[in-house]
Amino acid sequence: MNRRHALALVALSLASIALPAARAADADKKNRIVIQVSDSDPKKWALALNNAKNVQTDLGKANVEIELVAYGPGLGMLKMDSEVGNRVAEAMNDGVKVIACENTMTNNKIAKEDMLPKIGYVKAGVVEIMQRQQQGWAYLRP
Amino acid sequence: MNRRHALALVALSLASIALPAARAADADKKNRIVIQVSDSDPKKWALALNNAKNVQTDLGKANVEIELVAYGPGLGMLKMDSEVGNRVAEAMNDGVKVIACENTMTNNKIAKEDMLPKIGYVKAGVVEIMQRQQQGWAYLRP
Amino acid sequence: MNRRHALALVALSLASIALPAARAADADKKNRIVIQVSDSDPKKWALALNNAKNVQTDLGKANVEIELVAYGPGLGMLKMDSEVGNRVAEAMNDGVKVIACENTMTNNKIAKEDMLPKIGYVKAGVVEIMQRQQQGWAYLRP
Repeated sequence: MNRRHALALVALSLASIALPAARAADADKKNRIVIQVSDSDPKKWALALNNAKNVQTDLGKANVEIELVAYGPGLGMLKMDSEVGNRVAEAMNDGVKVIACENTMTNNKIAKEDMLPKIGYVKAGVVEIMQRQQQGWAYLRP
Repeated sequence: MNRRHALALVALSLASIALPAARAADADKKNRIVIQVSDSDPKKWALALNNAKNVQTDLGKANVEIELVAYGPGLGMLKMDSEVGNRVAEAMNDGVKVIACENTMTNNKIAKEDMLPKIGYVKAGVVEIMQRQQQGWAYLRP
Repeated sequence: MNRRHALALVALSLASIALPAARAADADKKNRIVIQVSDSDPKKWALALNNAKNVQTDLGKANVEIELVAYGPGLGMLKMDSEVGNRVAEAMNDGVKVIACENTMTNNKIAKEDMLPKIGYVKAGVVEIMQRQQQGWAYLRP
């Protein structure tokens, strides 16, 4: 291999290192938003659902990923007796991913049977919220 | 074109794909912050304005872009009868961009005539807050 | 230098521009979270400390950097008479960085002698929170 080849190959390898960054930047452009619910206030729960709906209405359901994470004092939003249970079901029908924090459930002796049907679970709601941001999702705390 | 040319051109095209990522990373370094106001509490409105002022004082007005977005129960901050109307005007004089959510206005039958003069408008405040983060702005909810 | 050399060098220089972006993307993958405390509510202070602990438990203390910034009405969390003073000390022992806003202290005539021992200080808490996000940290407002 002569010097010309060597230079081109070095350039090629440097460029390939940079490619994941380009892909990450592209991924960041997608409309993705994680909505935090950590208050025990049903008005906040309704606001969170309104916010999700407004984003879908403005951008089109197909053009945005929305994940709602309830933890701590906000977990009540996703319990069977939640005042906004019907609206949570509607949001899930509209493609919003709804997730409850298992740590909060354990600490408060709440079982999955006490929770709304069809919701998702993560071990730690806070970690989910952190990692979504690291994956380029926007954050919203209504 | 021989193999040497081909290699160099491949490298060139890969590098050019990566360039927008490099520019995006540079853009992320700028001081830009979107401040969310979604509470109906005038103390929160004052805190949001204090926060904007502190950022400008610490970094210099010319070195930071600040956008304040009021929506939902926070819209009252930008109504004509707002308790902090004078301070909102001051903030705008200091270069803070102040924006109201038209969805909230429609839902509450509030017209632009009911709002403080010279503020800006977006269709959905939540979408503005999401997109600013996707453009690399920091998020603050006072 | 002939055309082949020139092409390879151009590719090389473009790739080197893109490299910092690749490194920044790697840095973003680390688990780093800045937790904002700006409410005067001791329940919120306890929730912030619970959140920090849950992140450390779920990911392992060594695998996450946590910074808690108290400012405005949240500064009381870090005063000598704070109801959660013992838990703040525990969190610091566990590696959580705890920081108070000097602007808030000045505005409220609070001296460092009035504050919990061993905590850190920044001039403007809001600027710290903004800059951490610009460095790729996730944001949490419990």
